[in-house]
Amino acid sequence: MPKVDLSQIEQTNRTQYPEPFATDVAGRFYRRIAPSTGLKDIGVSHVVLQPGAWSSQRHWHNGIDEFLVMLFGEAVLIEDEGETVLRAGDCAAFPKDVPNGHHLVNRSEQPCTFLAFDCQYGEGDCHYPDIDLHYDAVAGKMTHKDGSAY
Amino acid sequence: MPKVDLSQIEQTNRTQYPEPFATDVAGRFYRRIAPSTGLKDIGVSHVVLQPGAWSSQRHWHNGIDEFLVMLFGEAVLIEDEGETVLRAGDCAAFPKDVPNGHHLVNRSEQPCTFLAFDCQYGEGDCHYPDIDLHYDAVAGKMTHKDGSAY
Repeated sequence: MPKVDLSQIEQTNRTQYPEPFATDVAGRFYRRIAPSTGLKDIGVSHVVLQPGAWSSQRHWHNGIDEFLVMLFGEAVLIEDEGETVLRAGDCAAFPKDVPNGHHLVNRSEQPCTFLAFDCQYGEGDCHYPDIDLHYDAVAGKMTHKDGSAY
Repeated sequence: MPKVDLSQIEQTNRTQYPEPFATDVAGRFYRRIAPSTGLKDIGVSHVVLQPGAWSSQRHWHNGIDEFLVMLFGEAVLIEDEGETVLRAGDCAAFPKDVPNGHHLVNRSEQPCTFLAFDCQYGEGDCHYPDIDLHYDAVAGKMTHKDGSAY
């Protein structure tokens, strides 16, 4: 059945972030849609942000296009150019290799729901302009900006 | 600005389908989001289906994952397993190489809006189980099922 049955996909708020960065995303509950539906090339995450939660630390990727669409509720998109409220139907695109750190923050009183997309080709490092964190794609782990281990 | 300004992207109902197949999609108005936003690996189409319009002829792809999410209104997803109404927030996944022809038909009295995603890698032929039509990816054109030209 091509229609996605979200109730059959595990919802989790796991994160690879070390503390203190993990706390900001504790209210981010997501489902990975691609594995259970057989998609191999497109990555899709169904994400619910509780009030106050962040979608991620502000970041940008080498090698990975990202795209998101808000489905219900609203959140603030924060990036180098400023802040923009995203409401149902609003979309945002983050082309690979463009060094514009971005994330969503739910400053509303209600949960919001969005889909986040990426492409399963060409993953490179992930950069966090605001904090001492770096994702090393070759090693497959988070490090300090100087490369040392957390 | 990462937020997508749809008003700045051309909306069209062009189609590569020959007649009589083009008529079914005359009420399909779409915007290609990726080119204007700099995305290279993820393809995104913002589509409005007028009442009665089809999203496409029923089809499936070699080599291309497809995914869609309904944003506003509703349409009927038609595929080998039957018919399913998709409403705001509902998603459907069509993994590459799975021979399950699918399309959306707007049987409601209102327009509906959805996003359709694909991956810009690995495009193969497109198959149309209901009609004498085939997309030949090497030649880059629509043909009859026997390979002859339209």
